[in-house]
Amino acid sequence: MDARTELSWSGWGDPAQATELPASIHELLRTGLGVTRATPTPAAISDLVLAAPRLDAEAAGQMAAVVGDAHVAADHSARARHALGRSTLDLLALRAGRPLPAPDLIVSPGSHEEVAGVLALCAARRIAVVPFGGGTSVVGGLTPDAEAFAGWLALDLRRLDALHELDEVSRVATLGAGLRGPEAEAILGARGYTIGHFPQSFEYASLGGFAAARSSGQASAGYGRFDELVHGLRVAAPAGELRLGRAPKSAAGPDLRQLMLGSEGAFGVITELTIRVRPRPAQRAYDGWRFPDFATGCAALRRLVQDGPVPTVLRLSDEAETAMGLARPDAIGSAEASGCLAIAGYEGDAGAVTARRAAADAVLADAGAVRVADAGAEWEHGRYRGPYLRDALLDAGALVETLETVTFWSGVPGLYAAVTAALRDTLTAAGTPPVVLCHVSHVYPAGASLYFTVACAQAADPIAQWREAKRVTGAAILAHGGSISHHHGVGRDHRSELERELGGLGVAVLRAVKATLDPTGILNPGILITP
Amino acid sequence: MDARTELSWSGWGDPAQATELPASIHELLRTGLGVTRATPTPAAISDLVLAAPRLDAEAAGQMAAVVGDAHVAADHSARARHALGRSTLDLLALRAGRPLPAPDLIVSPGSHEEVAGVLALCAARRIAVVPFGGGTSVVGGLTPDAEAFAGWLALDLRRLDALHELDEVSRVATLGAGLRGPEAEAILGARGYTIGHFPQSFEYASLGGFAAARSSGQASAGYGRFDELVHGLRVAAPAGELRLGRAPKSAAGPDLRQLMLGSEGAFGVITELTIRVRPRPAQRAYDGWRFPDFATGCAALRRLVQDGPVPTVLRLSDEAETAMGLARPDAIGSAEASGCLAIAGYEGDAGAVTARRAAADAVLADAGAVRVADAGAEWEHGRYRGPYLRDALLDAGALVETLETVTFWSGVPGLYAAVTAALRDTLTAAGTPPVVLCHVSHVYPAGASLYFTVACAQAADPIAQWREAKRVTGAAILAHGGSISHHHGVGRDHRSELERELGGLGVAVLRAVKATLDPTGILNPGILITP
Repeated sequence: MDARTELSWSGWGDPAQATELPASIHELLRTGLGVTRATPTPAAISDLVLAAPRLDAEAAGQMAAVVGDAHVAADHSARARHALGRSTLDLLALRAGRPLPAPDLIVSPGSHEEVAGVLALCAARRIAVVPFGGGTSVVGGLTPDAEAFAGWLALDLRRLDALHELDEVSRVATLGAGLRGPEAEAILGARGYTIGHFPQSFEYASLGGFAAARSSGQASAGYGRFDELVHGLRVAAPAGELRLGRAPKSAAGPDLRQLMLGSEGAFGVITELTIRVRPRPAQRAYDGWRFPDFATGCAALRRLVQDGPVPTVLRLSDEAETAMGLARPDAIGSAEASGCLAIAGYEGDAGAVTARRAAADAVLADAGAVRVADAGAEWEHGRYRGPYLRDALLDAGALVETLETVTFWSGVPGLYAAVTAALRDTLTAAGTPPVVLCHVSHVYPAGASLYFTVACAQAADPIAQWREAKRVTGAAILAHGGSISHHHGVGRDHRSELERELGGLGVAVLRAVKATLDPTGILNPGILITP
Repeated sequence: MDARTELSWSGWGDPAQATELPASIHELLRTGLGVTRATPTPAAISDLVLAAPRLDAEAAGQMAAVVGDAHVAADHSARARHALGRSTLDLLALRAGRPLPAPDLIVSPGSHEEVAGVLALCAARRIAVVPFGGGTSVVGGLTPDAEAFAGWLALDLRRLDALHELDEVSRVATLGAGLRGPEAEAILGARGYTIGHFPQSFEYASLGGFAAARSSGQASAGYGRFDELVHGLRVAAPAGELRLGRAPKSAAGPDLRQLMLGSEGAFGVITELTIRVRPRPAQRAYDGWRFPDFATGCAALRRLVQDGPVPTVLRLSDEAETAMGLARPDAIGSAEASGCLAIAGYEGDAGAVTARRAAADAVLADAGAVRVADAGAEWEHGRYRGPYLRDALLDAGALVETLETVTFWSGVPGLYAAVTAALRDTLTAAGTPPVVLCHVSHVYPAGASLYFTVACAQAADPIAQWREAKRVTGAAILAHGGSISHHHGVGRDHRSELERELGGLGVAVLRAVKATLDPTGILNPGILITP
């Protein structure tokens, strides 16, 4: 395993890139949020207490017969690294010092056929299987309800890292599901192409995970969501193989690709993806713009995405987030910003970028925005830094987490107000008044997503504190017409909200699909839907 | 029922608009295709022989208690008009003089709740239900396997014709599923909006049908396929109600909208749709261009759709279709055309149309096309005329039908050759050498659809003649990587190809979904999947 691309076991990314909080933020935490309590910071991975493994050497031997000895692990470090995702709840659990559930075995198949072989063994032995891509879930998507099973196997897909085919005529590439974002971009970049999918998790998350969780990247306005880029899927399910996507679009019945996209490993294991690729852009330019207020900024974003020209990147921070400087994580605390900061970015041929940028500039200026020097470059530099900031804030004793939702444009103001109020009221009532920051993270002609960051002092039981805030906020999202997730997914944390969002009959459909593809229910039990 | 919008019982559209074939075409049929046999033309609707009805007055009375007496029909004319779609096989059946299966009752609910009420009655009485929109299926989608049921009820959705909501901020409209294309455009047009969905069936097909069968319009390059325009669906299924689509895009699990889109009435009845709308374009312009050959034209279309600018309408006829003048149905037979005719159309604000057209003109000219005066206007004038032409050709004794497929760009040449050869070889071997015409009807960055028109002399049993040609062609489509349908759907006619396309496990998923939503299997039995 390449250390460079291995997530820190206890937080985000590369420990060498950890963020130091400036004094102004420490001061804000103390005086603004009442953070006074020192909270446990992660010790050493060897100090983690893991639940005793339940699978024996015979099981490990059977798996090794399929994937090879070198690709089965059961050591403490591997178990710890595959036990949790990277939600704040996960990070708090890693810091809590209590015993953690963890997989018994970590198995790394090297091909679709090996995936199928492992699934067959697990079905026969009733072993719960968690497909493991980059390990970056923020919704509890990697921790199954495994008690009813003989054991828990993490199926690490990292070795599915091939470029199977690059069809330059059709501009589609067939790639292994275990490729991380930068690996896929490097392979395709060498041939002159890009996927254009750059979520905040880009540096660690995998292609299969992008698909299984319906990821959306920071440049989605230009390149589309990941689910819009997927043309074909190869899936290994306990009941057999699915090869979906003979054409970019078809009227041959319901689109089963859209049933696997968002299935979060509960229906099958995505082993290969056929994805739209584009020529690498010759030019990239990111601009910052300041609006007087959030409503004016939202109206301008809506105008751009409905009437064009549509930038490649288009985001808008509310007043609170702008004041905090969170749109520029590396400059956090140093901003004296007023109003609402927007980022508009353009990627493509030089001439096209120039023309589109000029046309969008005119719309933005007409809509009341003024240009902010350097803000675009600062955003670009810090675009993957947010999770590092969270680690530093947790170290400092704050509770900090993000959540997101999406609705139609007409519902955005009401949803924004309701979520902000739910977070503020719940956490204030708990004695830990928060700061609540928000940005429009993705835009569509018909609607937009809202991405919230919340920070407050940790209560005595920060896990219970956040669960309660999340529960109230989820209810507010549903009550105000939002979807429970725009791009984080469902995992364990949003199961009950998904049930309310789809209704009982919708969930029954998901259960029927799962029962068909995974008759013994071994795949990600408790993820997406309850058994 | 408004006669203006009622399909001819025996062919296409408005009998007053029937096409007269020019002498040159009659000559071509005689000398080119060997059409000599006079074939039966439709007599009077009263002469049709329909199977004896099986549902009694009690059933009719129960339905009337739900929808009102005025909205239940069992008369000969209503039964005949709801018995078949508008495939050539359907039209031949109407001309054959043999007894036809037909629905026992035609029930027209006026609301979602009435649809649910009718479904509950039908489930209790085991009556097969065929959701009936515009009646324009060309894949046998309106003729169920009803033998195992107590009867056959056509659920005519025409009265679901309300504009429930126009959300001008989000640019989405919620509309009743029974609205025909022109009705919906008139309602929205009065408010300044358009859906932009203009398939050849536009004048008669319904919104619910567009969604259930994944329709694609002639302006799909600009407006998108219909399935891409659908943001929300309300569905009445025997097992309950589904309300899908709280946001334009979401990561809240699999996208169940995409399971209802393409479900062809077999999973539930779409009663309301929330659809993307756009401001009505101020300007429309359609240009004709001639390429020296099909490959050069395909390369140019691909360049436009991959690198832009993308016209609103983009189509390309092959040499045979261009020579026949079929791109301009009103001018058929009069063309002295060589090469391959393309149509590029632009809709939008005047300034935007001018700029986009000029930029596309430059690409087309650079790619080897020369402008053809008047061809764009002729295409626009004749864009909905194709089905009238088919009626006239059937009257003249020809067998004529269309079929379509889609694949990735790299597969287009092979698929084109294979389908052309399958049609030509099969029909020639049957003693009726055909003309096979083709155009690229819809384009995507990753691929394109191919739309074939075939004409030959009718054999003694033209239904068997076409079934065999279709069977061989379907196999060729699948063998060469195509999908069995780009926009016609599955119906009865493509069931076995769908099974091969999705594989056994994919079909098992569809069956599981159907069993959940329609436990007694009353909805469209035999459509989409076999029971």
